[in-house]
Amino acid sequence: MTTISPPLGRRLAAEAVGTAALAAVVVGSGARAAALTEDGGVRFLATVGASALALTVLIQLLGPVSGGHFNPLVTAGAWWAGRRGGDGPGLREFGAYAAAQTAGAVLGTGLANAMFERPFAEPSGQARDGGALWLGEVVATGTLLLVVSGLDRSRRGALVPAAVGLWVGAACWATSSGGFANPAVTVGRALTDSYTGISAGSVPGFVLAQVVGAAAGVALAGLLFRPGRTAAVPADARELVPGPR
Amino acid sequence: MTTISPPLGRRLAAEAVGTAALAAVVVGSGARAAALTEDGGVRFLATVGASALALTVLIQLLGPVSGGHFNPLVTAGAWWAGRRGGDGPGLREFGAYAAAQTAGAVLGTGLANAMFERPFAEPSGQARDGGALWLGEVVATGTLLLVVSGLDRSRRGALVPAAVGLWVGAACWATSSGGFANPAVTVGRALTDSYTGISAGSVPGFVLAQVVGAAAGVALAGLLFRPGRTAAVPADARELVPGPR
Amino acid sequence: MTTISPPLGRRLAAEAVGTAALAAVVVGSGARAAALTEDGGVRFLATVGASALALTVLIQLLGPVSGGHFNPLVTAGAWWAGRRGGDGPGLREFGAYAAAQTAGAVLGTGLANAMFERPFAEPSGQARDGGALWLGEVVATGTLLLVVSGLDRSRRGALVPAAVGLWVGAACWATSSGGFANPAVTVGRALTDSYTGISAGSVPGFVLAQVVGAAAGVALAGLLFRPGRTAAVPADARELVPGPR
Amino acid sequence: MTTISPPLGRRLAAEAVGTAALAAVVVGSGARAAALTEDGGVRFLATVGASALALTVLIQLLGPVSGGHFNPLVTAGAWWAGRRGGDGPGLREFGAYAAAQTAGAVLGTGLANAMFERPFAEPSGQARDGGALWLGEVVATGTLLLVVSGLDRSRRGALVPAAVGLWVGAACWATSSGGFANPAVTVGRALTDSYTGISAGSVPGFVLAQVVGAAAGVALAGLLFRPGRTAAVPADARELVPGPR
Repeated sequence: MTTISPPLGRRLAAEAVGTAALAAVVVGSGARAAALTEDGGVRFLATVGASALALTVLIQLLGPVSGGHFNPLVTAGAWWAGRRGGDGPGLREFGAYAAAQTAGAVLGTGLANAMFERPFAEPSGQARDGGALWLGEVVATGTLLLVVSGLDRSRRGALVPAAVGLWVGAACWATSSGGFANPAVTVGRALTDSYTGISAGSVPGFVLAQVVGAAAGVALAGLLFRPGRTAAVPADARELVPGPR
Repeated sequence: MTTISPPLGRRLAAEAVGTAALAAVVVGSGARAAALTEDGGVRFLATVGASALALTVLIQLLGPVSGGHFNPLVTAGAWWAGRRGGDGPGLREFGAYAAAQTAGAVLGTGLANAMFERPFAEPSGQARDGGALWLGEVVATGTLLLVVSGLDRSRRGALVPAAVGLWVGAACWATSSGGFANPAVTVGRALTDSYTGISAGSVPGFVLAQVVGAAAGVALAGLLFRPGRTAAVPADARELVPGPR
Repeated sequence: MTTISPPLGRRLAAEAVGTAALAAVVVGSGARAAALTEDGGVRFLATVGASALALTVLIQLLGPVSGGHFNPLVTAGAWWAGRRGGDGPGLREFGAYAAAQTAGAVLGTGLANAMFERPFAEPSGQARDGGALWLGEVVATGTLLLVVSGLDRSRRGALVPAAVGLWVGAACWATSSGGFANPAVTVGRALTDSYTGISAGSVPGFVLAQVVGAAAGVALAGLLFRPGRTAAVPADARELVPGPR
Repeated sequence: MTTISPPLGRRLAAEAVGTAALAAVVVGSGARAAALTEDGGVRFLATVGASALALTVLIQLLGPVSGGHFNPLVTAGAWWAGRRGGDGPGLREFGAYAAAQTAGAVLGTGLANAMFERPFAEPSGQARDGGALWLGEVVATGTLLLVVSGLDRSRRGALVPAAVGLWVGAACWATSSGGFANPAVTVGRALTDSYTGISAGSVPGFVLAQVVGAAAGVALAGLLFRPGRTAAVPADARELVPGPR
């Protein structure tokens, strides 16, 4: 099926709006949870749950407009997947997407700050460093890209909104770092000194780990899913018993 | 597809019943949660979770009868979307819907009060005021209308029940105000002095902020989704990579 | 579509197995939650959440075999809906279903008791009485039957598994009684002295309230959904704007 | 529909990756939850919730490659179902699957240990023994296999990813043992001394109970679902009223 893309400006607006909404939910839910309870487990349940729900809705809503990436590494994965066939974004388009996503994340963080009576932008004092946390970001981002790229390679893109939401709900709990897994939102979160913040000095390490993880996830998807040698799979296909039936 | 609408009386009954059930779940779950735990985070998890689940079921169940709005601002958005083509409710119908929704919310609040041994209607003493909370209502209502109007403009109305439930689950946590986002239910909640109540004096500020947010959300949906220039999108369409395939 | 029913014996076995599994989840999750935390809100979150998930899976799994009722009042609603057209269970079949469901609930409660090192059957000492709780059972059972009957009357039976799970998740929180809403499982719960038990003396009041609620819910569904005068609705149909499109 | 299976090596890789991701989520979420809260109920909510979400995504993602078993007893059930018709895995293939799954579980546990600054493999000191816990494993594994085999026998394999995730979310809460229900992951969990660990000495009892439960669940599915005598059922079919319509 050939789809006519909306013009670039509208796609960038959709990426900025979606990433802003995502960042506002991450930061806002963290601020609200921290105000409501002292229990760290309940705080994390609330923040991760709200973020996962928001991601699913936003990807579903805006996917037909811009692809619903809201994450430069997802856009990079789409560029990588389409670099030969010409059906992905070009490098210049990748840059524009990443800029729109980062601007959106900063805007959304500011909106959350304002809703909770904080300055629009403020430096976070919360250091998040060290090999264990970086490994956490590698795992969280790697598995996220494995899910997105794997579904894309097997032509099941319609499953991405639900799968990303469900996976983020699991991966944030599973990883020591809390599963940021998104350079744009990581930059945004450097601008709030609330529960979900990250100090500016910890951002480069997190982003680098995310890039490494994304590359690994895309590579793993390439090994497990071979579109050239596999028949197209219907959107909800799942066979309990592999083999002819 | 041309649909023959049920008669207005039956549609108003559906809006009243649905809004009553929604208000009963909001108020009842809040009362039960407040009785069961002192932890503010657990209370809010329970109330928001129950409300989100109820919304999805009620919109799904009653949507084919009345549209499943249960919120005057959703009805207003439908009026706005259809004001030229003649396929939305007229202004008089909007008024009847809003009245049925408000009556339903009052009834549902009373039912919840009775289930928890409170007077059928009682004034709430809980003031909810100030710019930060009003901004919260603008954000919560604006994003709710963006979701509903955006799915409607791109002809994916079948996704509304799940999307609204999921989004409310996220937005209530993300906003400082708790995400009332519904004038009819806000009026109902003025009539309970339990966990989810709002004092009568705080209602006008909340409703005004909701109206402002709804207008912004509908406007934003108009910018991002251009039905006249976009091909119809299948209900679950989602492309990871925008562009031809 | 004409469906050939499985033989009655296999259908009764499916109802007994499904109701046993449901009762085991309700009672077992309550016992486990009570052992793990002192927080009443967390206990109820766990028990209600587990029960709602189980209901969805069990109805989905066993629906094609027996209808997936697991509740004498759902079976009664099916009898009522089909009493003239001859496509529902007869009164004798209703009796057999109710007996299988009750036997299953007793068995499942015993299994949960055994898993938590309690006697297979023991009297509960937890009185649950009074008008407020009975009203809660009327509301919980009434809305449950409204959902099931409404979807059935509008030929959207495929939505029942998810809708029932979601609605139970909301209604248990919304009602003062905790939303038993099922005479068979109520009888089973009289045989455990753990968190989810109910004393034998409180059972008649609960069951009577459930019957009253179920009748009200079926009647309300009859008012809101008129199959004779409405065109068949596709399974996931939902129109934001009522009227021609 | 005849499906051409991917080569065995790729299927084993998918089983190893999927089981590794599952084990990493189980162990990692347990470690994180134990670090964040003292409340045992909140800890279990987080661990079970994350595990259930992960299972659904992983089965959905990798099902078309390898079947998405991630559990030797699910593979055994597929062997049993296909032993006569020749459309299931053979015994040698079962052995390869079980080995890949166990290796994956050990790897995933090690990854989780590393993320939380523990040795890659360490013996667990947490004994989990006794008849009540073993009964819990029988029930958890038996009902899991009932769900998977029942959906498979009634040709509704597309429902397995969601059904397994939902059922695990319920069954872990319902059972005294916490619902391990998977010999490969049980072996992996013997290699972490964190919240979700199990001492090596307790593994044989758990695995034996799981095998007994799986056999019972497959047998029960055989009684309730008779593919030879039942017409194929559409993926989401569900009839409220059994019988002709």
